Parts: sequence; C-alpha cells; structure tokens
Amino acid sequence: MWRGACFQERMVDHFGFVNQDTYKQRYLVADQFWNKNDGPIFFYTGNEGDITLFCNNTGFVWDIAPEFHAMIVFAEHRYYGTSLPYGDQSYKDPSKLNYLTSEQALADFATLIEYIKSTTPGSKNSKVVTFGGSYGGMLSAWFRIKYPNIVVGALAASAPILQFHNLTPCSAYDKVVTKTFASYSQNCVDNIRQVYSTIDDLAKSGGNATLSFLTSTFQLCKPLKSSDIDTLEGWLEGIWGYLAMINYPYPANFLEPLPAWPVKGACKPLLNILNGKELIEGVAKSIKFYFNSTGNTQCLNITQQATGNLGTGGWDYQSCTEMVMPMCSDNTTIFRPVEWNYTAISDNCYKQFKVRPRHDWINTNYWGKSLSSASNIIFSNGQYDPWISGGVTQSQSDTVVAIYIKYGAHHLDLRSANPLDTDSVKAARQQEKNIIRQWLYTN
Amino acid sequence: MWRGACFQERMVDHFGFVNQDTYKQRYLVADQFWNKNDGPIFFYTGNEGDITLFCNNTGFVWDIAPEFHAMIVFAEHRYYGTSLPYGDQSYKDPSKLNYLTSEQALADFATLIEYIKSTTPGSKNSKVVTFGGSYGGMLSAWFRIKYPNIVVGALAASAPILQFHNLTPCSAYDKVVTKTFASYSQNCVDNIRQVYSTIDDLAKSGGNATLSFLTSTFQLCKPLKSSDIDTLEGWLEGIWGYLAMINYPYPANFLEPLPAWPVKGACKPLLNILNGKELIEGVAKSIKFYFNSTGNTQCLNITQQATGNLGTGGWDYQSCTEMVMPMCSDNTTIFRPVEWNYTAISDNCYKQFKVRPRHDWINTNYWGKSLSSASNIIFSNGQYDPWISGGVTQSQSDTVVAIYIKYGAHHLDLRSANPLDTDSVKAARQQEKNIIRQWLYTN
Repeated sequence: MWRGACFQERMVDHFGFVNQDTYKQRYLVADQFWNKNDGPIFFYTGNEGDITLFCNNTGFVWDIAPEFHAMIVFAEHRYYGTSLPYGDQSYKDPSKLNYLTSEQALADFATLIEYIKSTTPGSKNSKVVTFGGSYGGMLSAWFRIKYPNIVVGALAASAPILQFHNLTPCSAYDKVVTKTFASYSQNCVDNIRQVYSTIDDLAKSGGNATLSFLTSTFQLCKPLKSSDIDTLEGWLEGIWGYLAMINYPYPANFLEPLPAWPVKGACKPLLNILNGKELIEGVAKSIKFYFNSTGNTQCLNITQQATGNLGTGGWDYQSCTEMVMPMCSDNTTIFRPVEWNYTAISDNCYKQFKVRPRHDWINTNYWGKSLSSASNIIFSNGQYDPWISGGVTQSQSDTVVAIYIKYGAHHLDLRSANPLDTDSVKAARQQEKNIIRQWLYTN
Repeated sequence: MWRGACFQERMVDHFGFVNQDTYKQRYLVADQFWNKNDGPIFFYTGNEGDITLFCNNTGFVWDIAPEFHAMIVFAEHRYYGTSLPYGDQSYKDPSKLNYLTSEQALADFATLIEYIKSTTPGSKNSKVVTFGGSYGGMLSAWFRIKYPNIVVGALAASAPILQFHNLTPCSAYDKVVTKTFASYSQNCVDNIRQVYSTIDDLAKSGGNATLSFLTSTFQLCKPLKSSDIDTLEGWLEGIWGYLAMINYPYPANFLEPLPAWPVKGACKPLLNILNGKELIEGVAKSIKFYFNSTGNTQCLNITQQATGNLGTGGWDYQSCTEMVMPMCSDNTTIFRPVEWNYTAISDNCYKQFKVRPRHDWINTNYWGKSLSSASNIIFSNGQYDPWISGGVTQSQSDTVVAIYIKYGAHHLDLRSANPLDTDSVKAARQQEKNIIRQWLYTN
C-alpha cells in the first residue's frame, strides 16, 4: 500500500554537538491520495517496534487519507525495526544506547518532517497532523506540545501520558484489567485471583508431580522447574493485560491472532468457580485460547508473551530511564499483590544497563497534568483498555479533547473500519475526523 | 541584597542517562519580600556570564518584587560563572563542552525550580515568572514555550530569538547600529564609514610611521603591527555595537562605565566631516570616550571590547553549535561590507572546537516565527538596541505581546528605575507589571 520504505540520515545526537554520527531512519510514505498542492501530511509517530507492524494496524489513517487528500508517513522510532543508530551494535553497550530517548525520537520526527517538506515539491505549506497509539500516542501528544511549529494537531490514541510517578496510583492499570474481565464474569476474576496461590500450594505439596502436571497442563515447551514457578505466574499475569488490550469486537491479529472479544473467550473456561487442579486446568484453557486460537501452536514458552515485532529490549531500556511507570497490585485484582519498589527497579536497571531511572524527569519535561497551555490534541481512550488508567480522560480545554470509547480496547479507533465496529468507536472516529478538519481548515 | 549564593546539584546530561555526573549550579535567592504562603517566584534565567553581573543589572525585578511579595531567584547558566560542570576542565576538551547547550540550561532551570519548590516550605503552589535580557531573554521565552508547566509567563527583554538562519536578513543588526548613530548625527555615520579605508590607505602608503601613528592615536598598549590592522578595524566595529546596546539615558556601568546617552558622546568628536589623520584622531576620541570615561584607563587593548564578567569563551562555543546568528554588512552601514559565509564559520568552528554548527536546529526546536501556539510572553525591545533586529516586535496574540521602547537601548526596561528614565521605558515597565499581575492573579 505504501510506495516503499525510505531512509533518511538523521543525527544520532540532536542535543549535543560532539557526536556527529548519523544513522538511517526508516519511514514509509504513501502519496497516492495526496493533493500535491499543499495537501496535508498524516504522520504516524512510530512506537517501540518495527514500523510495518504499526503501519499495518493503523487502518484509520489509511481509511481517512483519501477524503483529506493527505500524504501518509509512518516514521520508525530510533533503535527499533531497521532504524538502528549503530546497526547490530546498537544494543551492545550502554554508551551506544545513550541516544535512545523520547526527546531524541521527537527531534528525529521534527527534522524528518522538515526534510520531507523541503524536498517534496508541493508540500512546503502542508499542514502536518500526527497520529499515534500507545507509546506512539504519547509521542504524538508530546510532539504537539513541544513542536507546535511543526504539527497542527495530534491524535493520541490510548496514550498513557499520566502513567508516571505521582500522577496515577500504581495499582490503576491492574484494576482496569480486573474490571474488564469482571465485565464478562465475576467468577472469571475470582478464579484467576486464586490461581497463583493454588499453584503455589500445589507446588509446595506436590513436588515433581506438580511440576509435570503444570508442564503438561500449560503445554509448555520446556519442563517446568520449581524455580520457574514465579516466571510462570508472571507470564500468566502479563497475558491478562494483553487480552484486555486487544479485546476488539472482531477477529484481529495485532499481538496474537484472536477471535472477537477475546476476554470473553478467555473467561469461558472460568465461568464457574473452580478449585485445585480444575482451576489450573481452566486457566490453562484460557491461556491456550490466547496463544492458540489458530491451532498452530505446538507448545508454549513462559518467557514469551506476544509474538509480533515489538522490540522489547529497547523498551526495557526506556523503562529504565525515562519511561518509569510505577505498577503495583493489591488483593482486589487478578494479579498477585505486589508493591512498587523504585529502589529495586533502579538497582536492577543499573545491573542490566548501567543506567538509573529518573522518575521525575518525564513529568518535568512533558508537563504531567499541567496541560492547560496545550492545544489541538485528541486523547482517545477505550473502556476495556488497561492503559486508560494513565490516559487523559477529561477534556482539558476547547482544543485538548478527551474521547471515551465505550467497550473500546487499546487504540481501537486507530484500526480500520470493520463491519463489527461498535457504535462508540464509529462515533469516536467521526469526532476525530471533525476535529482534524478544524485543525486543517480553520486559520 | 540577596541572602547569599546557593548551590544545588544538577545532572550534567538531562538528555541521556549514561553520564550520571552532577555539578553544582549556583543561584542567588532573596526572600525578604516573599509572601511565604505561596507568593510568586521571580526567576531570572541566567545569561552567558557570571550571574552576579545580571543580578546587579536587573533592578526592575528588585524594584517590583516587594509589591508582588515575590521571592527572587537568579540562576546561573551552566558553563559560566562558578557553575562549571567539570570545574576548570570544563573548557579543556570538546567532550567536556558537549553539555553546553540551551536545552540543557533550560532543563537545569526547570529542575532547579522543582527543587526549590519541593524544599522551600510555602512555595509548593508558588507561580513562577521568568525574567531575562538578551540571551537570558531568549531563554526566558523558550522556557515558557517548552515548560509552561513550570512557568506561568516570561518577560523576554531584548531577546533576539529571530536572529537566526532564514528568519532575519543578516545585515539587520548592523543597520540598526547605523540608525542609532544616525539619530544623533549623519556626519558621525559618514565619518565612521570612511575610517576603515582611511586606515587601510594610510597603512599602505605610510608603513611604520602609520603604525606608530595609530598606536599612539588609539593609545594602544602594544605597538601595532601591519598584521593587526584587520583586528584593529574589527575592534572598532565591535565598539559601535556595544555603544548602541548601552545607550542608556543616564550614566551606567554595565559593560563599561559610561555617561548618559553614550552614542551621543561618542559622536561628539565626529560631528563634522573629517578626512585622513583627522578622521582617525576623531574616531580615536570616540573610542577613548567609550573606554575611558572615568579617566582611569592607561592604554587600550584591541583584543578586548568590554570588561565585566561576560564569559566570551562559552559564547564562542554556543555560536559554533546552536546560536548561529548570521551577520553581514553592506556599504550602507558603519561597518565594513562583509558577506555571511556559513561554510567558513563551520570550518572555523571545527578547527576551534571539533564541532560544526547546525543552523536549522534552533528554529526547529524553538519554533522560529511560528509563535501562535505560545502564550504569556512579553517581548520588549528598544529602538536604539541593535538586537531589536532579531526581536519579536509585533504582538503575536492577546498573550504574546510586543512592547516597543522608544529611545530604549539593550534591555533598558530590566534596569532599576532612574530619575532620568524616559517616559517610554516607564510606560513599558508599567505595562509589564500589569501583564505579570494578570498571569499571577487570573486563573
């Protein structure tokens, strides 16, 4: 659908002048709908992953570009996909990772847009609207607040810009996941909440027999060891979050190929209160539903939560520097109770990357909740999406508008129109188009 | 007047996490006027020099703090004064200079304000207004546009934020200086314009006799060599700029101790058209007027244009990286005609600092002329000030307001009230106070 991948030289370091290295940033361009006489540019601010994944899952931009006669650009985030500042050495040592920050990524986007506008005839006066979902949505919003000279407005879908230190209770994410599951079945929630202690108790009493029971029940690729129990339970927890995120009203293949409303499907084996081995078997059915709706998966790997092209190594680094999202859970959720321990996180980051997080900086730099000076941003959030916990869910002004999508999951509005779409997502997209039209055609 | 210098640890690198060094930033605090129950903070964003110089020359802040019950903070800019990230090694090699950028300075200010507010009882909800003149004014304006979460408004006095690539004709500065001199005497302008070729001609024909004539006429500390002629002429040029900048209506001692309206005084020996040696003697009298109004100067040094605490080494580096201000002159000014040669500048920067300027970046990063999204900034400019050439002289919106000070020199409005103040600067200060009051007491 796009005319091919382009690559353009970017500075590795926009914020210092000693390092004069450049790297090739990848971006995808489609200009078949574009009015070459200053038609707008719809610019996707790429996430923590291969840009083709987002290009293929952001159909909304493709759906509306023709009526806006817009050029489409999907820009890859540095250190992901093929946009590696130091090639296969990029992740090799901390000094090479030093340029993986959101500020550098925004500066990449700004200079890329200037490059495109200065080299593409007919685009000099094109207005640029940014789109992004999740971390890409955070970048879209931040791009508008930091570079309104480049961007007339931003659609930030499911962008948890408030999921940071002192802005949102650390248990908020887990509570939304729990609520999403509870909206299908309270028994499902109660069952899942019990599974961790059930596994613990069984492992304690049953020894090797329990381990082989768990291995076969969860159809694991490698025999479970007793030291893997914690990993197994963490793996289960991660899957609940993913299921809520991708609880779309139709079959989709974003992180995993799944039928419509997958939380409903995952809860199906857990509609009655279960205990002991039956509970574990029920949960295993839920998990296999997530991983194996196509029937092609041979066995499961507890160190893997989603396939696809998300570059989790880079995100681990970002979580250890700027993107410190405090997470905790109490005993009211479908997760194990756990406290937020910043010191432990920091020590772990230092061990892994030789860096320490600075959890205040993101709020200083990107304004936290003080958005009254911002303008022309749409924050859309879905009811079922765990990340609504850190989303901007109240309009801040006439031009910083929150859109709530009932029954919506993670950036559902950014996906292609679908016959099974809910009325709420249809209305959200209509409102988004109306606002974008205002950005483009007033003033 | 302040309760003493404070020092606080800042990150050397706000934009990368590998370098975890910190340094001691100096700031001056005065809280004798402050209402300790959330009274405002007046925060001066320090320039390219020792902060005490600006603290002592920004009397406006001191004059108005009592009626606003404001805390006063003057924050030193990194790499100047005592705020040296690597002590006396800070200027020793390019890698140590890498953190001398305006973005790092703004991040210093932001984190310093957060530190002050989190540690000073009664300041948690204090609103912060920034003040700055010249480069400090640019920082004040940029601080507001990039960190409106920290700052409710900025007074940017004589801040040439448009003195950059593609925004302002490169001859604009020189034309203002010429106009300022012409407002006193067109003959003065015509005389100065001729002095360079007069010196050249005399040097060509007169050999050593001319050199010793020039040495004694300008009262130079070191005998002039023929290779110094270019430096001598450049030194003269620099002085015209300084004279226009500090053309205050009363005796002042900012860069040099000078009587009121020093351009008038400097033009006094040049009111009649002069030629040959008489012209050079006339210009020498102007120069000595600038350097020696106190009668204490023994001899003059052509490598020195202003005493005081301006850290010119750091500014040379900043001019070689972000702060690339294109300058040129044609034959209508009191300067020698010269073209702007970016390549030559860049090569010279590489030779000196192993860096090359990026002249597009400052406009990308700080919005250039696209200020429609900005709010709560006052841009004040003086008629006589050369830097009005790159100033924002038209109001951009209801809240981004330009104030023009007739007969005003470089950030005259930031100086203490003086019995000899012009009506225009009095009116400017009154308007500034009214606007600041709005920032503080509405919303």
